[in-house]
Amino acid sequence: MSESGFLPQVEVFDTSLRDGAQGEGIAFSVRDKLAVAQTLDELGVAWIEAGNPGSNPKDLEFFRMAKGLGLTSSRLCAFGPTRKKGVSPSEDDSVLSLLRAETDAVVIFGKSWDLHTREVLRVSLEENLAMIGETVAFFKEAGKTVIYDAEHFFDGRKANPDYAMATLSAALDAGADRIVLCDTNGGSFPLAIQGGVRAAIALAAAKAENRSAPVIVGIHAHDDMGLAVANTILAVEAGARHIQGTLVGSGERCGNAALAATVPSLELKLNLSCLPEGRLERISALARRVAEIANVAVPEGMPYVGSRAFAHKAGMHADGILKVKSSFEHVDPAKVGNDRRFLMSEVGGRAAIAERAKKVDPSITKDHPVAAAVALRLKELEAAGWQFEGADASFELLVRHELGASKPLFSIERYRVVSEHPAPDANSCSNAWVKVLVDGVTEMAAAEGDGPVNALDKALRRALEGFYPELGRVRLSDYKVRVIDGQDATAAKVRVLIESTDGNEAWTTVGVSTDIIDASRAALVDSIEYKLIRDMERSLKTNL
Amino acid sequence: MSESGFLPQVEVFDTSLRDGAQGEGIAFSVRDKLAVAQTLDELGVAWIEAGNPGSNPKDLEFFRMAKGLGLTSSRLCAFGPTRKKGVSPSEDDSVLSLLRAETDAVVIFGKSWDLHTREVLRVSLEENLAMIGETVAFFKEAGKTVIYDAEHFFDGRKANPDYAMATLSAALDAGADRIVLCDTNGGSFPLAIQGGVRAAIALAAAKAENRSAPVIVGIHAHDDMGLAVANTILAVEAGARHIQGTLVGSGERCGNAALAATVPSLELKLNLSCLPEGRLERISALARRVAEIANVAVPEGMPYVGSRAFAHKAGMHADGILKVKSSFEHVDPAKVGNDRRFLMSEVGGRAAIAERAKKVDPSITKDHPVAAAVALRLKELEAAGWQFEGADASFELLVRHELGASKPLFSIERYRVVSEHPAPDANSCSNAWVKVLVDGVTEMAAAEGDGPVNALDKALRRALEGFYPELGRVRLSDYKVRVIDGQDATAAKVRVLIESTDGNEAWTTVGVSTDIIDASRAALVDSIEYKLIRDMERSLKTNL
Repeated sequence: MSESGFLPQVEVFDTSLRDGAQGEGIAFSVRDKLAVAQTLDELGVAWIEAGNPGSNPKDLEFFRMAKGLGLTSSRLCAFGPTRKKGVSPSEDDSVLSLLRAETDAVVIFGKSWDLHTREVLRVSLEENLAMIGETVAFFKEAGKTVIYDAEHFFDGRKANPDYAMATLSAALDAGADRIVLCDTNGGSFPLAIQGGVRAAIALAAAKAENRSAPVIVGIHAHDDMGLAVANTILAVEAGARHIQGTLVGSGERCGNAALAATVPSLELKLNLSCLPEGRLERISALARRVAEIANVAVPEGMPYVGSRAFAHKAGMHADGILKVKSSFEHVDPAKVGNDRRFLMSEVGGRAAIAERAKKVDPSITKDHPVAAAVALRLKELEAAGWQFEGADASFELLVRHELGASKPLFSIERYRVVSEHPAPDANSCSNAWVKVLVDGVTEMAAAEGDGPVNALDKALRRALEGFYPELGRVRLSDYKVRVIDGQDATAAKVRVLIESTDGNEAWTTVGVSTDIIDASRAALVDSIEYKLIRDMERSLKTNL
Repeated sequence: MSESGFLPQVEVFDTSLRDGAQGEGIAFSVRDKLAVAQTLDELGVAWIEAGNPGSNPKDLEFFRMAKGLGLTSSRLCAFGPTRKKGVSPSEDDSVLSLLRAETDAVVIFGKSWDLHTREVLRVSLEENLAMIGETVAFFKEAGKTVIYDAEHFFDGRKANPDYAMATLSAALDAGADRIVLCDTNGGSFPLAIQGGVRAAIALAAAKAENRSAPVIVGIHAHDDMGLAVANTILAVEAGARHIQGTLVGSGERCGNAALAATVPSLELKLNLSCLPEGRLERISALARRVAEIANVAVPEGMPYVGSRAFAHKAGMHADGILKVKSSFEHVDPAKVGNDRRFLMSEVGGRAAIAERAKKVDPSITKDHPVAAAVALRLKELEAAGWQFEGADASFELLVRHELGASKPLFSIERYRVVSEHPAPDANSCSNAWVKVLVDGVTEMAAAEGDGPVNALDKALRRALEGFYPELGRVRLSDYKVRVIDGQDATAAKVRVLIESTDGNEAWTTVGVSTDIIDASRAALVDSIEYKLIRDMERSLKTNL
């Protein structure tokens, strides 16, 4: 049970930060990991598998810093293998590194396939059972909740069913709290998954006598045959009550089961609670945020949360929908916080906008005219490639603009950025000048930089610092670039996200253009504007 | 049976050109459609649903021109609805337009859900049955093979099972050759799909007496719950012998069942023949070609055919694979014409490097000195922020360089890129000039662009095309930017990944710098270098 006291019927276990990080092109910084963990907690998953401290020392820093996150819905786990052969768990560095993560729960994975035991681990079948049992027992003695991942369970059960079940027995007898059946290679069919789940449940029931709490059986599916979601759902139909996956489906090879595609079916179709009340409505937005941090896109056609999931193209379908909603929609998109795409501003959209706009003016409700105006403006901007999901500060400026509450505090009249190769001197390959207008006064400044955006950023700050000395404390803490459409690649639109901080607060802004420098300019301008408005408001409050 | 005489155990029916064309962002010209049809014929699908001549008059031109294609494996079908209410089929324009397509087979769709009949079509349940029966009978009398698509069959069966079955009876009694059960909204679960398939098979068997050939029952699944592939496979396990989908999964909303993700499982795992002998090995290449024509990308993580489908990142997985192939691979990638890839990283080790370097020189083993040299170089480059896991072409150039096997075919002597705001003219905010050196000869060129990288790319190609006209066929198909460390953000290093294609092949290259333009320059240079080397090797082989 989490801090919040919510007890789900099906536990959701997210491994975006561990198995998901093994997806091609994904590399999280510690800050990224903290942001993902916070987002998953907002969604309300039961478990967050956040790293393997034994194989990645950077993960220990994450676990140290994560203590300050104050998660309320989710519990963190550290992940690692059973002990090595021939040593006791307390002599095994990898085992000990899990303790150093200081999580209440650990995930221990062991081998269930005799082939792997013999030919990959190269230990005897008996030694493998001892490795499983002793490692689980070690962590139980250390007071941990132990989730046991039976790697390759389904392949193992096919090859040598008695041995596969014996590996589960070893973990159960040693006191494991969860037994998770893994289709590590993603090569198992749904009906085989159901057979394995039923066998594991029967085994756990037979061993239930001396336990205070029943053992929960879980599923961990991979998508190598396009069956990860189906295998997860059918495992639940067979009695599994713990599902492992990654929110947007990232992971080794074809990825893990995408939780954003799975959880809505369990909640909306099978009436099994997975997330605390009211969270499912946020899954589309939170999936986008996690993807944004990972610098990947939520696949457009992703079930439930993709931008096309409720997009109707055929005229016949649009016509049907307008007559009867359920005619071409299997669920109401609002239930997962997504939008039907051919209809104008739905109530759900405006309600969400109003919710966010309350930060600017608490009196804004969904019927406030600004909600409709913002909805319209968002629609235009999103069609042009903008996205405000990860850019709260730019969204706030947009609301202020629609409220007529802010006039720009400065503007860029002109700029020119030059990049040269070979670099004219060793320290800078780019230079920029910029001319700004503040309250009728113009000012120019120039700067060199490590790249064109860096040069522009420095020149812009230099030009403004005479007017606004407080900008001296601001620095950019993250910079992300996403190409919006891959066709006609170098001429495609790019979206730039900039995170800025003044030491107390961090805020994110967005810019879109075919020109990366122009997109960066838009995000830089928003960042500075936001900082100046916040400071003005704060000083107003102090003076009242 | 096709021209070629092949009789599959499971008929593959591709609707990329009809349902697939209803995916967002997809628009086929007649030429595109002809190219897709030819590609599907090469793959050997049994049926190609190529259009709805009643709703899209352009489709008639396709059917006229398609007669010249000389398809040998596939048969074309035209698609349309049952007759309108109150008219006979011979008075219905839409019905008559199907005849004008002059295909041997037609696909007729009708309503199986009473809700749709009453509230969308707005006809009585009895009239709907007459519409189905009379339309099927009309086409049978015209000598056509009739494939009957029972739209919303599974939703209909849930709402009013007797009526849903009565609609199938109407089609069967009128002589339909195939009965295809459609999960039009994608909201049905696998076990419900199996129930529907078994009921339809029983009904067809009960009505089999007066028929020369048995009726084949088919499945048409959509992916709104991520279950399209599973529903298709489980339908086959329940007895369906005709599967409808789109090769790369395009289609309304979340798309249709992706045939490229489904057919390999049926052939390799369930031993059901779907394609003529030897065709499955081409499915990865042909899926890529169809996607190319549709101007979409094959999703990287797509089962079997995606670029990441057999990509291993975790060192432990790479190690396992090198010991026993099946340890982390559910099938041999060669069986679907795909490649095993070890995502190159220092953790991957020399064995993985050697495995990958064999493409350049088959004699390289992990004890070859070049493996150690490459490992060392990778370590240095990765410490500087390079990453080769997604950049096979750059990795190959690195191996060639360490082998001393390649000297650069050109170099950039100087370049200068300028971005200005406001843009000096409406069409370009950036301009670039570049000076190249090829075999002692220098050449300069200049270009304007939508952004600095686009301008540099255009200028560089322009400067080189006089030396290497083959570069005219190359275009950049994807462009990705990743900021490597978020601290000191705009001065942080960026990693640029560029995917290029010449229509036959695609390759990816990487560049890293604090300057995004310089990083792009490095990736562009590698891309061009790789293309030139590949072409030279190919022409050497041809001349031997």
